[in-house]
Amino acid sequence: MSKQNSSKPSLHTVLTPQLLDLYEIKNSIVVIIDVFRATSTMATALYNGALKIIPVDSAEACIEMGKATGGITAGERDGKIIPGLAYGNSPSEYPRSFIENKTLVITTTNGTKLLHMALKMGAQDVITGSFPNLSNVITYLKAQNAPVILGCSGWKNRFNIEDTLFAGAVIEAVKDSFTIHCDSSFMANQLYNQQKDHLPEYIKTLTHWHRLAAYGLEADMLYCVSRDTAPCLPIYKDGALINGA
Amino acid sequence: MSKQNSSKPSLHTVLTPQLLDLYEIKNSIVVIIDVFRATSTMATALYNGALKIIPVDSAEACIEMGKATGGITAGERDGKIIPGLAYGNSPSEYPRSFIENKTLVITTTNGTKLLHMALKMGAQDVITGSFPNLSNVITYLKAQNAPVILGCSGWKNRFNIEDTLFAGAVIEAVKDSFTIHCDSSFMANQLYNQQKDHLPEYIKTLTHWHRLAAYGLEADMLYCVSRDTAPCLPIYKDGALINGA
Repeated sequence: MSKQNSSKPSLHTVLTPQLLDLYEIKNSIVVIIDVFRATSTMATALYNGALKIIPVDSAEACIEMGKATGGITAGERDGKIIPGLAYGNSPSEYPRSFIENKTLVITTTNGTKLLHMALKMGAQDVITGSFPNLSNVITYLKAQNAPVILGCSGWKNRFNIEDTLFAGAVIEAVKDSFTIHCDSSFMANQLYNQQKDHLPEYIKTLTHWHRLAAYGLEADMLYCVSRDTAPCLPIYKDGALINGA
Repeated sequence: MSKQNSSKPSLHTVLTPQLLDLYEIKNSIVVIIDVFRATSTMATALYNGALKIIPVDSAEACIEMGKATGGITAGERDGKIIPGLAYGNSPSEYPRSFIENKTLVITTTNGTKLLHMALKMGAQDVITGSFPNLSNVITYLKAQNAPVILGCSGWKNRFNIEDTLFAGAVIEAVKDSFTIHCDSSFMANQLYNQQKDHLPEYIKTLTHWHRLAAYGLEADMLYCVSRDTAPCLPIYKDGALINGA
């Protein structure tokens, strides 16, 4: 890296995709965060031996890429598998017995869209983050000595708390290695420190909990706030996320 | 109001102007929040007897409107009075001895822009909120039985903590009167409750403190987090904010 040792790289938190254009994405490492459930599912699939994950930003692209690669297609809208795709967005659908050595082609409401935005804006590296692979994200970011954008996927461009909580967890662990002049990061870190000891109870108060609980997805969400249960590092290379850990 | 008694009106917090288009502004009361310092200064000027305040969204419009109305022109960029305007954005510039019975024409970096956005999007009513007029805002919102948008002005479309803190203070007082399905509001309320007993110390950790402290504006900012020091209700009527309290 060309960065001098005397100055630490910057770290910013982007609270929703609609704010991404306000930040310097080029030459940054962008961490895509979609706790419920895209990036938790991606970590789980790669940890369980998936060959690679191709994130696509529409159902049409998912069908097409599934045909082209022979991969498993996955995507949901409103808690149901999208017609034409084969599987959903739940981490529980991707145990080792099913996903090992397979390619997963996946589209989600928020996370895969933000990932493509970051790529288009010239991010130096794109990784995905979730509580199941928290420590891997921390270790990676500390080792790079490059500017970091923690990108929260939110919900249809609105702010959500669970993605911000994950950003706060990362910040708590890496803040000594970065220069942080960013109220979003301060807020995220404070929110995490306030709630970190009772995440399973706290998430039951969130808007997203109520939306997904209506589809019977409570167990998914509890898994999605479990730390380091799927240790791996999803990193984007040549059109797909692979396990870079 | 056509609203039935059995259902409470909604309340949302918009964390930056760049997210305003994601919300239903039409038929809502929009509270413009720009704690450092636009809406604190507006409350102070009206409390001190200003006839009205004309918020304009550019320096050019400020000069023109100042000529047309004989009003006092005010606006700063980077801590200095904008060339062509007469006064700055500090609440301390508008004591009763100076501002009583006068018209103030003011432009600011964030707050006046958000106000004009809300007007263009068809807000039913636009008021401004700040800690110096906190209780007036609370009393007004509780009396209306209409949907509320708490609009944080942020900093150049980025999130800031001080505006969110004020939103949280309002929510803490009005939440029993509204239906709130909004993570931004939950976060704002939690942040406020975490920090409310030591605001003067807490604000010294924020990005905006450091920016304005470089211009020697520490006393301004401490005033801007003092509660109910300028009790009034700036409400937009016929092109200007007047005191509706």
